[in-house]
Amino acid sequence: MDEPDFIEETLASEQVFAGCLLQVFSDRVRLPDGAESVREYVKHPGAVVVIAVLDNGKLLFERQYRHPLRRVFLEIPAGKIDPGEHILDTARRELREETGYQAKLWRHLGTLHPCIGYADERIEIFWAQGLSFIGAEPDHGEILEICEISLADALLAVRDGDITDAKSVAALLWAEKTLTGEWPLAR
Amino acid sequence: MDEPDFIEETLASEQVFAGCLLQVFSDRVRLPDGAESVREYVKHPGAVVVIAVLDNGKLLFERQYRHPLRRVFLEIPAGKIDPGEHILDTARRELREETGYQAKLWRHLGTLHPCIGYADERIEIFWAQGLSFIGAEPDHGEILEICEISLADALLAVRDGDITDAKSVAALLWAEKTLTGEWPLAR
Repeated sequence: MDEPDFIEETLASEQVFAGCLLQVFSDRVRLPDGAESVREYVKHPGAVVVIAVLDNGKLLFERQYRHPLRRVFLEIPAGKIDPGEHILDTARRELREETGYQAKLWRHLGTLHPCIGYADERIEIFWAQGLSFIGAEPDHGEILEICEISLADALLAVRDGDITDAKSVAALLWAEKTLTGEWPLAR
Repeated sequence: MDEPDFIEETLASEQVFAGCLLQVFSDRVRLPDGAESVREYVKHPGAVVVIAVLDNGKLLFERQYRHPLRRVFLEIPAGKIDPGEHILDTARRELREETGYQAKLWRHLGTLHPCIGYADERIEIFWAQGLSFIGAEPDHGEILEICEISLADALLAVRDGDITDAKSVAALLWAEKTLTGEWPLAR
């Protein structure tokens, strides 16, 4: 696929909100056709998701209240990258903090961009196997319920609308391809 | 799964940025343990994605420059819901505007939430079949390149990191389950 000429030139960039979590920018850009437009977006530190496979073959999920949508979501373990933190360290830390598990085998599977229209967030997808429970250490204000779900049941939960979190649905595609051996883990 | 007691009570809500696209809020909430915290998030009008299956069996994709990440992404057709618009009308409109195709058969497959940590956006997933080309009508400032990719090649593009847009990866899970007949289309 050739790279077509549709790059946008940034003419000006203004931070319009500096929050605890969100840094919001409004940029003026020149489009390839010469016209000007405005692009508003969130700068995000990036995050990881962890496909954590228990010895019984089930996957670790968590249920968490999500304020923007005012309800509880079923999702796979995830968390933000701390400044300067190596992404594998983030994955180990978040799995430990949120679920209480450590893993013997870790693999980086790929990257997701959850919100390319208005955020620069990237999510690094990790695979964790050889799990042992050593006790959760949740962040202040992070209230979670952990559950174990088989891949088959998780896929049915996607089909039936019980899992709608996009990072979790996308990770389940990776989980299915990896568990069936269609996309073998790197050595 | 029982609903555990982890609802957050909203104490105050302030709009901190009112943009053309993004409406940003900062809410003060009371956590279930009684502590207070701040939740920052984006209010979004919602969107649709369209899994558009050509008569040759391939799927419609588009390549588009995304300013927040300053690069071109390979993704499936998608677009925002206009105020008061029925989601099926959004899907028909966006497929027509962006790709130039209309479809005989439409089905609503499900819902995705792309960014539950800091946005209330929902994305409605549609299936479109029986496609005929009648001419694209791109929005001002929307510069796209349309391409046709088989499901098998699209899945390899996910594996190889060429498709990282989470809504597209999640939609490909739906596409595979639907095309294989594992999740049959509703009549």
